[in-house]
Amino acid sequence: MNNKFLAQWFRPAVLKMKGYTPGEQPGDPTVIKLNTNESPYAPSAPILKAFQYLANERLRLYPEPSADTLRHVLSELYDWPVEGILVGNGSDEILSILFAASVGKGDLTYSLYPILAQIREAKTKEVKLDPLFDLPFEKFSTNARLTFLGYPNPPIGNCFSQKKIEVFARKTKGLVLIDEAYVDFADDNCLDLARFNPNILILRTMSKSFSLAGVRLGFVFAHPEIIEQLMKVKDSYNVNRLTQALGLAAVTFESLETVKKNVKKIRFERDTMTEALRNMGFSVPDSQANFVLATRTGKPTAESLYKNLKNKGILIRYFSHPRLRNSLRITIGTPEQNRRLLTELKKLL
Amino acid sequence: MNNKFLAQWFRPAVLKMKGYTPGEQPGDPTVIKLNTNESPYAPSAPILKAFQYLANERLRLYPEPSADTLRHVLSELYDWPVEGILVGNGSDEILSILFAASVGKGDLTYSLYPILAQIREAKTKEVKLDPLFDLPFEKFSTNARLTFLGYPNPPIGNCFSQKKIEVFARKTKGLVLIDEAYVDFADDNCLDLARFNPNILILRTMSKSFSLAGVRLGFVFAHPEIIEQLMKVKDSYNVNRLTQALGLAAVTFESLETVKKNVKKIRFERDTMTEALRNMGFSVPDSQANFVLATRTGKPTAESLYKNLKNKGILIRYFSHPRLRNSLRITIGTPEQNRRLLTELKKLL
Repeated sequence: MNNKFLAQWFRPAVLKMKGYTPGEQPGDPTVIKLNTNESPYAPSAPILKAFQYLANERLRLYPEPSADTLRHVLSELYDWPVEGILVGNGSDEILSILFAASVGKGDLTYSLYPILAQIREAKTKEVKLDPLFDLPFEKFSTNARLTFLGYPNPPIGNCFSQKKIEVFARKTKGLVLIDEAYVDFADDNCLDLARFNPNILILRTMSKSFSLAGVRLGFVFAHPEIIEQLMKVKDSYNVNRLTQALGLAAVTFESLETVKKNVKKIRFERDTMTEALRNMGFSVPDSQANFVLATRTGKPTAESLYKNLKNKGILIRYFSHPRLRNSLRITIGTPEQNRRLLTELKKLL
Repeated sequence: MNNKFLAQWFRPAVLKMKGYTPGEQPGDPTVIKLNTNESPYAPSAPILKAFQYLANERLRLYPEPSADTLRHVLSELYDWPVEGILVGNGSDEILSILFAASVGKGDLTYSLYPILAQIREAKTKEVKLDPLFDLPFEKFSTNARLTFLGYPNPPIGNCFSQKKIEVFARKTKGLVLIDEAYVDFADDNCLDLARFNPNILILRTMSKSFSLAGVRLGFVFAHPEIIEQLMKVKDSYNVNRLTQALGLAAVTFESLETVKKNVKKIRFERDTMTEALRNMGFSVPDSQANFVLATRTGKPTAESLYKNLKNKGILIRYFSHPRLRNSLRITIGTPEQNRRLLTELKKLL
């Protein structure tokens, strides 16, 4: 097509952009998939049982526009006001909504999400982690509209000091979003920090500890007046009936017990994996998440390890980013999957 | 909260906006719900049967990022290239994506979706329908980035001349989106128009004829180079596994037969309803959709009819918009629901 037409139809910022490349999603179910930080365990029995009740004529009706039933249950479970909760089609959608509501052309953001910033023509800055993977908060400008942190922070899995986060949140003029996708695998979370600092938002997802990546359910806790603005921007019926129903099943007592048990197994395996990788000569920072980052210079390169493992049906994540090109990010799988990975890795070294 | 903070955190355009108010979604299943143009019929047997296979451990994995399996099946069914199809979390999401990709601050749009335009700080224009509910295409500027049409066009349900749409599409510099949410109830569709005019996009949904409003599944047909730009802007995993699987079940042969049968019943009922309302003194334009717009001046007012019907457990749609304040929009229900509505309406007149 004539480029003149595309220029008439699309914004220059979008034409220039490259889309995001999601981690590989192989169709073959025999692949040991340790590349996108999903849970290796099946969803809980209450979630799977819920399907009996879902095959129902009410699918023909629109879902609850703001998932209010689910918001009420989340409010009780997390002890957070209903009006301070927004439910989204995955935490991805909540991030898009937050960008649309907060960031205009030329605004400054510290973003883990460069594509969202490009869509809005925002100025983005990156702050490099220091050698101990800590965040040098003193280097952040306090004029950014949005500052993003992971807690635990991917792809390393460490947690920054809550004290330092709080000091920064009190200085900055903008919003601070703490992405707690992996927090159920950590020792602590930042909900109390957000309780006392109205510019802090806490983002959660059911994709990791709840074994529901396929269902797309995210939620955010924030001050009710912040949620009020985000609500204006979201699509009317952004979360479908099935996702809402499974979200409700996921927070029943029995389901939460399963999640706790799975989290315990994954934490144990994570620590075992960390030690085994260190014994093989990798440097592996302590992780509070369901993945570890293993770094090693010299031959064979990280990239060739990734490729050779892939040929053997084991998928882990390799990033070509300059600071990560000696690293492999490995999702914690079942004990058997982890053993397989370590055995194959040993053979390759 | 201090307004100064909100002004620091959110864009002025968003702070000024009012959110969209979706049609009422009553929890009470005994209400005769004729207010949001859902299907009165249950989803097809293949869709309901699919639930047996959905309660499966693979929910723990991310869905196909671009719903490629479903895109391939849609491509065959509608005879449209795979690369020219985008699947979304409802057609709502596709509209948001299109706005984000195409419209910048100050750009002109003719939009049925004022909130999407406000988020992007676009200039919007409305073109009023002429007395015969036709669209005076000659009044459109050809400089708009986006021009939106419904085919059939809500809330009236008429279809504009395809010839006139084509003449306009060839003159305008921008994109023309034809929202065909209700097209399965109409005599014709605009897919062929889009085949020969690369700036026309055709938006479809499974919320109406497919009885799947609760599932959120929309798709758009356009030139592959247009879809390429939209793909960059969408969230990575925008359509969940369940929705993709039910979408596949919905386009099986058996399911499509059910849809056809239901559409036939609804078209028959629509014409019966139109005649009955005309006999009661309403003016009702011929509709090609699954709803009718009934207009009547004098007492009792449309608003009081709406309220009195609601008290009797029958929900229809009333809009306070000046041009619609003498009108009621009535979704076609089952024959029994339609009879109930007409009986109660007769009593109120």
